[in-house]
Amino acid sequence: MPSLRLALAQVNSTVGDIAGNAASVRRWTRRAADSGAQLVAFPEMMLTGYPIEDLVFRDSFVAASQDALRQLATDLAADGLGDVAVVVGYVDADGPAPTSSDAVRGRGRRDASALLLGGKVKATYFKHHLPNYGVFDEDRYFEPGDSLTVVRFGGIDVALTVCEDVWQAGGPFAAARRAGVGLVVNINASPYELNKDEVRLPLIQRRAAEAGATVAYVNMVGGQDELVFDGDSVIVNARGELLARAGQFAEELLVHDVEIEPAPATGTPPPAPATSAESLRGEDSGADDMGIERVELDQQPRPVTDGPAVGGIAERITDEAEIWSALTLGLRDYVDKNGFRSVTFGLSGGIDSAVVAAIAVDALGPERVVGVSMPSGYSSAHSKDDAADLAKRTGLDYRTEPIQPMVDAFLANMSLSGLAVENLQARVRGVILMALSNQEGHLVLTTGNKSELAVGYSTLYGDSVGGFNPLKDVPKTLVWKLARWRNADAARRGGEPPIPESSITKPPSAELRPGQVDSDSLPDYEVLDAILTGYIDRDEGRAELIAAGHDAALVDRTLRMVDIAEYKRRQSAPGTKISIKAFGRDRRLPITNRFREGV
Amino acid sequence: MPSLRLALAQVNSTVGDIAGNAASVRRWTRRAADSGAQLVAFPEMMLTGYPIEDLVFRDSFVAASQDALRQLATDLAADGLGDVAVVVGYVDADGPAPTSSDAVRGRGRRDASALLLGGKVKATYFKHHLPNYGVFDEDRYFEPGDSLTVVRFGGIDVALTVCEDVWQAGGPFAAARRAGVGLVVNINASPYELNKDEVRLPLIQRRAAEAGATVAYVNMVGGQDELVFDGDSVIVNARGELLARAGQFAEELLVHDVEIEPAPATGTPPPAPATSAESLRGEDSGADDMGIERVELDQQPRPVTDGPAVGGIAERITDEAEIWSALTLGLRDYVDKNGFRSVTFGLSGGIDSAVVAAIAVDALGPERVVGVSMPSGYSSAHSKDDAADLAKRTGLDYRTEPIQPMVDAFLANMSLSGLAVENLQARVRGVILMALSNQEGHLVLTTGNKSELAVGYSTLYGDSVGGFNPLKDVPKTLVWKLARWRNADAARRGGEPPIPESSITKPPSAELRPGQVDSDSLPDYEVLDAILTGYIDRDEGRAELIAAGHDAALVDRTLRMVDIAEYKRRQSAPGTKISIKAFGRDRRLPITNRFREGV
Repeated sequence: MPSLRLALAQVNSTVGDIAGNAASVRRWTRRAADSGAQLVAFPEMMLTGYPIEDLVFRDSFVAASQDALRQLATDLAADGLGDVAVVVGYVDADGPAPTSSDAVRGRGRRDASALLLGGKVKATYFKHHLPNYGVFDEDRYFEPGDSLTVVRFGGIDVALTVCEDVWQAGGPFAAARRAGVGLVVNINASPYELNKDEVRLPLIQRRAAEAGATVAYVNMVGGQDELVFDGDSVIVNARGELLARAGQFAEELLVHDVEIEPAPATGTPPPAPATSAESLRGEDSGADDMGIERVELDQQPRPVTDGPAVGGIAERITDEAEIWSALTLGLRDYVDKNGFRSVTFGLSGGIDSAVVAAIAVDALGPERVVGVSMPSGYSSAHSKDDAADLAKRTGLDYRTEPIQPMVDAFLANMSLSGLAVENLQARVRGVILMALSNQEGHLVLTTGNKSELAVGYSTLYGDSVGGFNPLKDVPKTLVWKLARWRNADAARRGGEPPIPESSITKPPSAELRPGQVDSDSLPDYEVLDAILTGYIDRDEGRAELIAAGHDAALVDRTLRMVDIAEYKRRQSAPGTKISIKAFGRDRRLPITNRFREGV
Repeated sequence: MPSLRLALAQVNSTVGDIAGNAASVRRWTRRAADSGAQLVAFPEMMLTGYPIEDLVFRDSFVAASQDALRQLATDLAADGLGDVAVVVGYVDADGPAPTSSDAVRGRGRRDASALLLGGKVKATYFKHHLPNYGVFDEDRYFEPGDSLTVVRFGGIDVALTVCEDVWQAGGPFAAARRAGVGLVVNINASPYELNKDEVRLPLIQRRAAEAGATVAYVNMVGGQDELVFDGDSVIVNARGELLARAGQFAEELLVHDVEIEPAPATGTPPPAPATSAESLRGEDSGADDMGIERVELDQQPRPVTDGPAVGGIAERITDEAEIWSALTLGLRDYVDKNGFRSVTFGLSGGIDSAVVAAIAVDALGPERVVGVSMPSGYSSAHSKDDAADLAKRTGLDYRTEPIQPMVDAFLANMSLSGLAVENLQARVRGVILMALSNQEGHLVLTTGNKSELAVGYSTLYGDSVGGFNPLKDVPKTLVWKLARWRNADAARRGGEPPIPESSITKPPSAELRPGQVDSDSLPDYEVLDAILTGYIDRDEGRAELIAAGHDAALVDRTLRMVDIAEYKRRQSAPGTKISIKAFGRDRRLPITNRFREGV
């Protein structure tokens, strides 16, 4: 059987930085060539970054992507890399620039993959299955492609596919079987969710079996606003066997030799019947028959001159390590890609800000992290001690700004009581952090966890102030779990646990009035998080939650809190998605909404 | 020819208030019956409100809609209204509750229309064309229906259709012609945009000609978060003639007798060919052939006992009147549907807050409006005078809260300079307004116009503080135009112009440092708004803007300001959409975005 040396370039691209992304392709193609690779595949929308959202409606943007693709082919040849087949994602459009009305309806824009060789764009393919659920709006943006592109290269038939194509039976993978291809290259920008890797691999294995071909799956890595791409690229053969697997959350070049069924002689009819339709969770029946476009390349793959390349199978990391990696990468890329030098946030001594501090220090290094203790008259001594202790453990830049003089100025000039006074303290802290940001240029982080965001347990324009929230999708119980994991991990490595033990063990409190603790207003977090996961992540209603064993009164109280906090979430900072349903693009609810479960 | 007395119930429904919406149907059906109507049509998603967004994924919500529909049929009969055919929109679902995975992919949910008669649900239809552009995400939520429902009622064949069905050639209207129907009932939740009425009527006229049938188009009225539904319901005959038209922005029952081609005797083959495909702006070619489901009703229409009903043709109002109506309705419904008693905002004496004050007073009455003057050392005497003058003219509740003592408290405790001091003033004002809101229960309004929001000319958590922004989609030049129109309109009616002349004529200034005016930092607003309209509303790039005659350096500066302000817009308050592209659901851009036009 013929063999092909594949390289999967699991790299980090930046939305809109088309020149920088093209330069990255050249850099990694050089590395691939140095490893003897004959074909290197880059992620979906590598040239533009992903997701580009409504940028796709701007003709100038699409034209820049198209121009960059052609220029990249030329530049690779000039680099002496014209003998490596490069598969790369970009945005394309049909024919001349569409009119504004067409643009509104998303007509003619394509989520595209191209194969570059010998200084030319030799083949293109347009994504067939467009996801339009969760965080995805691709029906808004793209027209689906309706034919599979098959490239004959070095005696092997290679099909080009994109991302969602692998998530549904039928369509491109059924067409790949009809076309009798030996290899399917599937380029991805598939965002991280906890345990998604456990779904992805069996899925790719089913598709490989469906196509009767080796599948090379390459995924992007890096953070983009609320999304983190986790890599986890794989090569699976036609029998569904895992041949090679890259690591998670880091750039990597996975190079592996694959043995591939040769293409039939030109003119031979393709092998017989398509696989029977699958009826798997969330996968289509595959009724849609696609056409097949064949491209024959004269140029032969560059010769392999050294011994065999074996990509190896990277070990999976634990759930907590996965999440920690996602949160640090999401924060680092938000900070760096948006050009911030440093971050700041309120360091209260509580668990949320302690975990944010540890994430920030891991992501950016302690010299780029400014923690601000902003004690009030209600702040306990242990809070201030814990904040200072954390600063000492992590080495971050630690400041203290007592809030009482500013709070008193408001109280002296307005008649405020109760909740208004509690919120005032949080808002004075918000003003201090924003003033520091304006004065010194830090990005302000907000530290409210998912449970708080769900029930509205925060002060709008107070502790919610900030440009990014590392804990936005992390429920409170998971915040504690991550803190324990991070400390234990440090101990395992012989380092200092960053989070003071008492920040983990003490009862959580907003400290906005004497003796206040969260449990005055909220159910126990174990109970609360279980209800929230049902209501938010799984769209369960009151009856289902009660049937699952939750107390009816508690369910009613919790659901009502979630419902009436929608206006706060609408103005909340972005933060990294790690769950199946994150607040943000992923969950779109009206603010004005009188529906009350069970009423 | 047989005649049918139609009633179009152009009414205001509330998202999630299923019981209240059903009660509204009963109330308006009673009025329709009192007018002798034989068929009354209510808007799309009347029972649930529109848009329900991700509520559709909750089985309990869909079940509540389905139950309410059946109960409504029963209740109407119990009300003695069982002899009126009631067409009403709701959300339906196929078969048993779908699994969570299906729910995520939006499978089996339907945007539905039902015909109720004699205490029963006699017929249902599922929307065929699902809009997935602009503010719409219907591919996320619904499965398209693939057959047209035709109900034979009193010798007339009536087709049921929903909203977007009328915006595209082919599909339901082509099927209606094949089915030989006499009347197409099209129920809508079609959001207002300036001049949309000028597009809608010709469109409906084309569809009436395509179907060869009378079209009864009923639209919702009212505000829902960022959308306002404007009514403007019409009846058009098969020759495209406008027979009756309701007013805009108010609930109304349009009752009109229509003469309709009788249905052929049962068993007669339907008349011949479908109309040729249209190639109009944004309309499909109509290639999709739908099935036809026929329902024959035994029950005859209730007899008409009085003289002819003529709905009349409401006059169109001016552009400024339209926009003012949209903004007042949008604000009133946000306030009332969310249960607020009153609103508050900073009254600076400038044009933006003056126009917001006039809108709020028109929407809610002066007794529900609290204007707060928050002068600083940099506030001019004329600003304070203008604010007080406006308060006197409108009768709103006027307060003064000088900010200097609080600003000084921050300055005494932190080392701040330049922009940090400017923003500090705006943020102290934000804290004051939120404290008033917490203390007294007002909804805080923010008053930044669309031009400011576009270029980021605002202080995050400062003047941007608020739960709703009436001017969010109103460019600065339009703010002035509306102010002049509102004053002139008052004069025409013999009332007092609400807005002080000097608020309109003086140069705009944020008054955050001595002698500051907007023109220090921004281009002239006439020029700025023209660039912004091209860049934002029409997705034009740098080259197109320069080709349109704009100064290149000014274009570059403006585009850069817009691009880097995305993070502020992401945390901005909702506000009423009046343009073709509003900030919010309508325009989705990444925050992290390094694309710079022309670089």
